[in-house]
Amino acid sequence: MASLHETVSHIGPLSAAAMEAARARQDQLTKPQGSLGRLEDLSVQVAGITGNPRPVIRHKAVIVAAGDHGVAAEGVSAYPQEVTAQMVYNFLRGGAAINVLARHGGARVVVVDAGVAADLEPHPALKIRKIGYGTGNIARGPAMSREQAVQALETGIALVEEERAQGLDLVAPGDMGIANTTPAAAIAAAVTGLPPAAVTGRGTGVNDEGLARKIAVVEQALRVNQPDPRDGVDLLAKVGGFEIGVIAGIILGAATHRIPVVLDGFICTAGALIAAALAPAATAYCIAGHNSVEAGHRAMLEHLGLRPLLDLNMRLGEGTGAVLAMGLVEAACKVLNEMATFAEAGVSERAG
Amino acid sequence: MASLHETVSHIGPLSAAAMEAARARQDQLTKPQGSLGRLEDLSVQVAGITGNPRPVIRHKAVIVAAGDHGVAAEGVSAYPQEVTAQMVYNFLRGGAAINVLARHGGARVVVVDAGVAADLEPHPALKIRKIGYGTGNIARGPAMSREQAVQALETGIALVEEERAQGLDLVAPGDMGIANTTPAAAIAAAVTGLPPAAVTGRGTGVNDEGLARKIAVVEQALRVNQPDPRDGVDLLAKVGGFEIGVIAGIILGAATHRIPVVLDGFICTAGALIAAALAPAATAYCIAGHNSVEAGHRAMLEHLGLRPLLDLNMRLGEGTGAVLAMGLVEAACKVLNEMATFAEAGVSERAG
Repeated sequence: MASLHETVSHIGPLSAAAMEAARARQDQLTKPQGSLGRLEDLSVQVAGITGNPRPVIRHKAVIVAAGDHGVAAEGVSAYPQEVTAQMVYNFLRGGAAINVLARHGGARVVVVDAGVAADLEPHPALKIRKIGYGTGNIARGPAMSREQAVQALETGIALVEEERAQGLDLVAPGDMGIANTTPAAAIAAAVTGLPPAAVTGRGTGVNDEGLARKIAVVEQALRVNQPDPRDGVDLLAKVGGFEIGVIAGIILGAATHRIPVVLDGFICTAGALIAAALAPAATAYCIAGHNSVEAGHRAMLEHLGLRPLLDLNMRLGEGTGAVLAMGLVEAACKVLNEMATFAEAGVSERAG
Repeated sequence: MASLHETVSHIGPLSAAAMEAARARQDQLTKPQGSLGRLEDLSVQVAGITGNPRPVIRHKAVIVAAGDHGVAAEGVSAYPQEVTAQMVYNFLRGGAAINVLARHGGARVVVVDAGVAADLEPHPALKIRKIGYGTGNIARGPAMSREQAVQALETGIALVEEERAQGLDLVAPGDMGIANTTPAAAIAAAVTGLPPAAVTGRGTGVNDEGLARKIAVVEQALRVNQPDPRDGVDLLAKVGGFEIGVIAGIILGAATHRIPVVLDGFICTAGALIAAALAPAATAYCIAGHNSVEAGHRAMLEHLGLRPLLDLNMRLGEGTGAVLAMGLVEAACKVLNEMATFAEAGVSERAG
């Protein structure tokens, strides 16, 4: 298993040569130049990520990491904590939104227990990689130790290695964890410098009173823990979550192996902020799948310099927005690979 | 073949009962209510369109209608007119963007010669439904006769009937026709009442001088022809196009058979404006696939009360934006059909 340090040190820039070749080919395909807009840009980005001027996406995976959060005790979620474990079973039975959307898009779903607060029944499709039984309550102290934070990140890195062995051309990290919009908001506030009220939303649907309580909890978490936004491990340890660390590790692992990562919504992007704090170059390997309804998601994406592909009023997590966007990434690569050029098709180029 | 009159008279409202049942089911699925945003709304709309509270999309088709335009003689396009026919051959060989994206999305491509200004070589996959050899130059007179306009509409209606025989659960009309953004802009201006300069764009990419000429041509076309925006046949005959009429007919045919229609960009939406002028109830059967870069597309969609699903800086036509959006419509229906309910999955519902 590659260490965090080793992984981060291997993340380099995108291939300028592959991007230039991909752009040149796009300009020869039978369509007005630029008329496929962001699909063209996506294909060029994937060329740069993979180093292949004509990248092919065959194997797609959504890696859904689940974890519990001590801060749930503060009443920041509309759902009880046991829903985390119940939803893991739902993922394993194929009945959740992420299962349906991944089947639709031809992506496999990998379910990971990163730190659910219960011993889950073994299942052939469940990867038990428990870092703890739920995090500490960030309103009172750190979420986890520094060692656990590194373990979470390295767990994500190792998951990418395992999945690569089965073929992995495109990956989306997904999340499940009751109360996890609270640590994600704390990470967003710490990194962007925005006030907690600007980046804290209703999550699964808390009412006005719940939202006010949640904002106060995020403020308290930042005051009590004083996370250092320039230190990704500190940020994760103090106000993160086990699944958020695994997500950040997946991003770093994918970047080091030149695999494009499609980001989901609020939780996943909090993981991307941690990955970027550890390795700023990793962000170039990320594609923002969608714009979540959750307050603060847009600010996170702007901080990373990413523009979301989809904007469908979604706020579910699990990787659902990312897996929908995977279809667009795949389509973009197929356009680059499969369309005829003007010369091949005998189509006249523009008059002037 | 159903007549235009008969078809229009059969277009009724969406099924309120099916929509209510679909919404009730969405609210029982294992996710916070509303958290799949527009996917939930789409599934409810498709339920209302089909009358089936759990609609299934199996057969998808993109019907690409091609036609030429006399107004090309005014120098309103960056490409020569022969590109229309050349692109039809490209569609038949599978090398165009619409072929690639339709294969990706599992939709069949139906290619129709609605009025190309050349005799095309026969091909098993080409439906020759020529209404004329290119339209008249709308800067000088009408595009076509009233009889030809009705013929174009009824051709679209008949295409839906033919495709239904092979299974058709979701349809997207596509277009190909050098210079066709000029008649589409004239239709947009006539219907919305906006000045031609506000709804005329660069099409395949004319320069500033070309754009100024194009705006003047649209102004002239409206002045010379005086189309009546409340009379869809008049609008089509005076400033439309053969493929635009076929597209409008496809929309009417789909609506009468309760098949959802995904709209593409500027040309397709001009067809939807004509369909709406003939049968206002038809718009409820339409889903706006994407927001085109082409100036005026948004104004058209607003006039119809439609909000686009995708916004990817695309401006190609052919049905490319629509076929990408078809994947979202299908995903929405799968969510409704395949997700587990809270009761089925044994997941606790929200606490308060």
